[in-house]
Order: sequence, then C-alpha cells, then structure tokens
Amino acid sequence: MAPPGVLNVGLIGLGTVGSQVAARLIERRDALARRSGGELNLCRILVRDPAKPRALEVPPGLITADPDLLLDDPAINVVVEVAGGDEPVRTFLERAIKSGKHVVTANKLVMARHGPSLLELAGEMNVDIHFEAAVGGGIPLISTFRTDLQANDIERIGAIINGTTNYVLGRMATDGIDFQAALAEAQAAGFAEADPTDDIDGHDATYKLAIMASIGFGARVAPEEIYREGIAGIQQVDFRYARELGYEIKLVAIGSRLDGRVEVRVHPALVPGGHPLAQVQGAYNAVFIEGDLVGQVLLVGEGAGGRPTASAVVGDLIDLARSIRRGVQLRSAFSFDPEVTLVPMDDVISRAYFRIRVADRPGVIAAIGTVFAEEQVSISSLIQKDQWVADGTAELVVTTHPASNGALERSRLRMGDLDTVRSVPAFIRIFE
Amino acid sequence: MAPPGVLNVGLIGLGTVGSQVAARLIERRDALARRSGGELNLCRILVRDPAKPRALEVPPGLITADPDLLLDDPAINVVVEVAGGDEPVRTFLERAIKSGKHVVTANKLVMARHGPSLLELAGEMNVDIHFEAAVGGGIPLISTFRTDLQANDIERIGAIINGTTNYVLGRMATDGIDFQAALAEAQAAGFAEADPTDDIDGHDATYKLAIMASIGFGARVAPEEIYREGIAGIQQVDFRYARELGYEIKLVAIGSRLDGRVEVRVHPALVPGGHPLAQVQGAYNAVFIEGDLVGQVLLVGEGAGGRPTASAVVGDLIDLARSIRRGVQLRSAFSFDPEVTLVPMDDVISRAYFRIRVADRPGVIAAIGTVFAEEQVSISSLIQKDQWVADGTAELVVTTHPASNGALERSRLRMGDLDTVRSVPAFIRIFE
Repeated sequence: MAPPGVLNVGLIGLGTVGSQVAARLIERRDALARRSGGELNLCRILVRDPAKPRALEVPPGLITADPDLLLDDPAINVVVEVAGGDEPVRTFLERAIKSGKHVVTANKLVMARHGPSLLELAGEMNVDIHFEAAVGGGIPLISTFRTDLQANDIERIGAIINGTTNYVLGRMATDGIDFQAALAEAQAAGFAEADPTDDIDGHDATYKLAIMASIGFGARVAPEEIYREGIAGIQQVDFRYARELGYEIKLVAIGSRLDGRVEVRVHPALVPGGHPLAQVQGAYNAVFIEGDLVGQVLLVGEGAGGRPTASAVVGDLIDLARSIRRGVQLRSAFSFDPEVTLVPMDDVISRAYFRIRVADRPGVIAAIGTVFAEEQVSISSLIQKDQWVADGTAELVVTTHPASNGALERSRLRMGDLDTVRSVPAFIRIFE
Repeated sequence: MAPPGVLNVGLIGLGTVGSQVAARLIERRDALARRSGGELNLCRILVRDPAKPRALEVPPGLITADPDLLLDDPAINVVVEVAGGDEPVRTFLERAIKSGKHVVTANKLVMARHGPSLLELAGEMNVDIHFEAAVGGGIPLISTFRTDLQANDIERIGAIINGTTNYVLGRMATDGIDFQAALAEAQAAGFAEADPTDDIDGHDATYKLAIMASIGFGARVAPEEIYREGIAGIQQVDFRYARELGYEIKLVAIGSRLDGRVEVRVHPALVPGGHPLAQVQGAYNAVFIEGDLVGQVLLVGEGAGGRPTASAVVGDLIDLARSIRRGVQLRSAFSFDPEVTLVPMDDVISRAYFRIRVADRPGVIAAIGTVFAEEQVSISSLIQKDQWVADGTAELVVTTHPASNGALERSRLRMGDLDTVRSVPAFIRIFE
C-alpha cells in the first residue's frame, strides 16, 4: 500500500490525453499535493508500444507494456484510464476494481456500455469510480448531475456534445462547402479522426447521452437504445433554407422526461438562431439542462482534446485523493428507477422541416397537403424555393407543427410515392 | 442527536428562498431521502414574525421567533440559512458551528466578509460549511471552483453576476429608455429591490466576486478591496454609440491572476457583441472561467430567485447528508496563498471608451490628442458623433488601445480642464 497521504497512480494510456495528465502530475507535483492534501505519485504508465518516441519526458522505468505490472501491483491504489475503447480496457478496469483499486476514467464507451455494472462492482469492493472526463471534456457535467442538481427533477437535456460534427456543420454553414469537403478539412485540421464514422454517424453522441440520461433521469439507458441519425445526409442547400427560416443546423443529443417516460435521441436538428445551442461554434460542446427548481442551466466548454480532458481527469483525481484522505467510501452510483420506460421513437413529438423536390405543375401542393392532412400533421409554413425550368422541377420547403415521429416518417414515405414528387431530400426535426 | 441516517434541519429564514427550500423538503421528502441516503427532516424554522401570513403550509409547531430554540437544540445537526444580511446572521452561524452543527448558507454577504474565519472555525469544530447558493443562484459555481477545476491554475474570471443591473442595462439597450425609467420598471416587475443601492452601485457583485476570487485564485480578497463602479452614470446615448462600435454595455465582475498578482474589479464595460457575456439577457447570470488546462468554460443560469437558489441550497444539503452518512469531515476550505497581492487599480490595464463634449471648432482634436499622448495612451478610434449647431458643440467618441487605469483617469481629468472641452460624460472600460 501507499504510505499515508500518498496516492500511487497507475496510468493507462499515454496519447493526447494521457501525456497531458502525466505532464500535469509530474510538473505540478507540489501544487497538486497541496490541493489534494497528499501527494499524487505517478508510478506506472501502461502503453501498447513502449518504444514509441514521445514528446513528454517521463522518468525512466515508469513505462511498461505489461498490464500485470500495473494491475497486480498492490502499491498502486488508483488506476487512471485514458486509453479509450471497449476491450481490453473494460477488463483492465474490472481487474483494477476487483483488486481494490479506485478508478478515474475518461472512457465514454466503457461508461456508457458497462458503467452500471462497473459501478455496482465498485460498490461491492468499496472503491470509487470517477468519470467526469467521459462526457464534455473539462465541462463540469457529471458533478453537476450527481451533486449540484440533485434537488431537482431533471426535465430536459439538450446538448451539442460532439465537436467533430459541430465543426463540420459549422464549416458547411459558414463557408458554403459540402459535407465531404468539410469533413476532409476537419480531418486535415485534426478535428476528425482518420475513420470518422463514430462521430459522423452519431455513435459518440449516443455514448455521452446514455451517461447523462442515466444520471440525470435515473433511467437505465444503453447507447444502442437511443434513436440515432448522423449528419452525412445534410446537404448544403439546407443550411441556406434553415437560415432563411431563422435556424442553424446542429447535431443535437436530446433527453427529456415526462410522466415517468424518458425520450432519448441523437439527430441533426434545426435549432432556433436565438437559442444558446445555435451559437456554439467549432469544437466547443454545450449542454443545456432544465430542472424543475433550477430552471435552465447552460454549461459550455471545449468538449475534447488533451488539455481540457486532462483538467477533468486530474480534477477527479484530486477529488478522489481528498475523499480517500477523509476515509470516504463510494459516492452515489447510478441509482435507477425501475419504473422508468423509454418512449418509442414513433411516439416522439417534434416539429419538422421537409425539403421536397416536386414537378413544377398545378396540383402538387394539394397532393402534398392531403398526405400531411391524412397523417394528422399540421403545416406551419410552405415556401416554394428554387425552380429549374429545364427539367420542370421546383423545391418546396415545408415546416410542420408538432407531430409524432411516426406520422412525420409516414408523411415522408407517402410523399415520395406521389406522382408529382421526385424525392424528399431532407427531413430534419426542429429543436425547440 | 438525530437517529442514524436522519439529518435534522433547522432553517433560518422563510422568505422567497426559504419557502421554496421548506416546500421541497416537505413535499419531496421521499425522493430526497432516497438521493441523500437518509431523511432530511425539517424540524424547526426561525423567522422574525411568526404571525405573518404565509403561502406555504408548514406543519404546526415548526415556526419560532426564538433563535435559541434552533441554535441550542442538540437534535438539530444542520443549520440552513437563507435569511440574508450580515448580523444577526453571522452570530447565528458562529453559534451553530461552535455547537457542532453543519451549515448550509445562501448568504453572499456573510461568506464574502466572514467566510474565511467561519470556515476556519468550522475546521476546528469538524463541521462543514456549504455555500453554493451564495453566488449565482442554481449555477454550479462553487463546486466547479472547489472541485472540478482544481487541476487548473485559474487565470481569469469574467462574470455577469447581478441580475438587477443586467435587467436595467438590457432595458436601456433594447428600449431606449433612460436609467431612472428602467430602474423604476425593474422595481415594478420585482427585479429590483425597493432600495436598489446594493445592486446598482455594484456592492452585490463585489460580494460574489470576493467569494469567487478567494476560491479561484487562492487570494484572500475582501469585498471592500475590490474596485467598484455602479451603473447609475450610464447614459442612453452610450448604448447607441457602443452598438455602432460592436459592443454591448454590461456590468462585469472581473478577476484575473498574473505573475502572483490578482486583479479584481466590478464596473460597467463595453463587451464585444460576439462574446458570450454580451448575449446574457435579463436576470440571467453568466460566469466565464479561464483555466490553464481546461481553456474557457462558461456557466449560465438564473442567478437569483427562490427556486434556483433553493436548488443550490437543497443540493448542498444532499451533498452534506451523503458526506455525513459516509463519516466525512470538512471538505477543502479556502486555502490562501500568502504571497498573492492585489494589483492597485491604477496599474490595471484595459482599453477604454470616452464620450467627450467639445466646442465644435478647430484645434479640439489636437488638444485632446496631446493629452492622450502625454499620458502615453494610444488612440484606437476617434469619431465625431452628434453636432449641435445652436450651442456650437459636438460629441466625440474615442476608444483607446490598452493603457493603465491611472493614465486613463488622468487623461479624463486633464481633458475636462481643456478650454475646448465642455465635459467628459462617459469613460467606460472595454472588456476583452
């Protein structure tokens, strides 16, 4: 065991985040010891390839590729995991907990998929798991849900929680370039991964929403239960039409709770220009929370990157060190209300924006109006946009009043079958 | 003492905040017990006038006007104070701590003036003081500084932290009414007190900044050490000129730390239109924090009012209940770095906006330019605004590059003495 007052830290991962965590622990040793009430002693770092050249100078002997040297070392009392991905990391964390080590993790995937079972195990082993860095980088989100807003019933969460898609959509909106060009640029600038699927298709946002919904609503939400749509289908022209109507297009993660049912979804949405989420630029994340007492709270910050994420990881480590020094056991784990059920996506109510490519001739609007009417969808605005005389087509933009997602989807399908409709290139829900 | 798992709560104050706290504790007893891991039992309420009619139905026998019945009751283990003001509340809290009771308080004045000594006393008595509600209503601010951002050196705090002045300035900006009319309207709408001095003159903001600077910078800052200017001198025309230059006018609380010195000030400022603080409307508060790891974080929410403040108070109570259940002692108190000194206001560097009423004749600009040059203040823009042919005067608007406050103030005085200058009706610093 570590001498009293010293926390021996084993770090898993020495990439973008890990090297910032290690740098802070090494370079600011004294300040962190003062704030923690005891030393945070980085004593082992697990990496895949110890021979890889690294910018950070690490004291010799710290780095290893052998998980056992970290996980089986009884002197290490905290494992800090910033490697990411599911396996083998989940197994590493389980082993750490089983041998009585506390865990600090930045791993959204593991926490979204296995958080409840790991937290349960940690409870049995009387150790703690901190995961502030798993959602929203350095934004104090998990602590806000777990502690500050505990007097509230959380009613709604609306979040821009994926920096890559926000950057890509922002470039499309501002510079009039198309999705592929914006994505290529984001990759070149280091804002998107070589394989950007996880971000672009909305998976990343579902992991983060699963964690927030679990804590915020007390609902056991698995990421794959969240309705998900990515941004690859958004076309340039929709930004122009959205702006004309007073909206920005953002990938939003939405959770809401009503009458014991929880609604969770990730999709592109038209966000009203005056809403704070519409203003969130580039790689910033923003989470909008509504509680029954607190009203509306907005938290904004850099949602990813080495330094902001390291801020959350090391903050968790200090919090943990203080708890250990005071002899504290487990903080509140997720506690689930078994009564809570998820709202099927068909029943989710929203307004929507449709862009419809039609034959430019009489009767079109009557036919479209009939479809919407039969599906009980009420039209809010209908504007004819560009016309192409050459092929006799025109584009209509329709916004609707609130309607069930089932009715909106059926309207879309049925319009596609009309003789007078060539295609329905855009169906985007409106966030309000 | 309370039976294990039960926290006996004595409440001081049953006004706007107190009745919301009492209502939540009474009406949501079971949910709060589940979240706290034990019952939060409201067992006494201290008020000034027990006979006063109240909207909230409180179980009979709870209300008393005798402080001893609350402070000397050994069964009460937490005192929740939402009465506000300095004495007699400070004495009540000191008595509570000395008899081993924990404290949750929403009292910015007591925490700004006496926080350090009360926290020290609490440390000796092995009890805890929570004061999340003292700054920014339900916005999770204190916990963010105390825990989430502890891995950072906080570099800068910029805040809109007084709802009354933000509402008044917003009305002046949007509706073209003057200060007195906007203030009267705010009073009628319940956004300003009958005696609004504490808000309008910036005192309220200094209490909140003192608390944030103490925690954020580890500097022992008393509210009276903070440079302070209120909003009563802001004239209607300055909103128009500011907008033309791309700024909004806000009352800002600014703290920054550089080279071991801390700068703290509260004054009206021109805030660039694109800055998030420029967008903060009405009674909302917003706090912008820059840390060396996390980068920029923005926290926004309703900064006052019964329900948001009760959210923070009851959140603190749940946090405290969990700590007590786990046998925890004192959390981190303020810890001060004795080396830190305050920057004298004369040495504070900022850009500035001047509005100057001049005789409309040749030589004016040369004379003004000479004053600024002699004070080493570099002019960024100089625009002639309205002209009044009848009395031969005109208005000049000058913005400067960064300069010391001493040089800016001397420039203002010396311009006032020029033959060609009638008056200098506005000198407003620019927030960047």
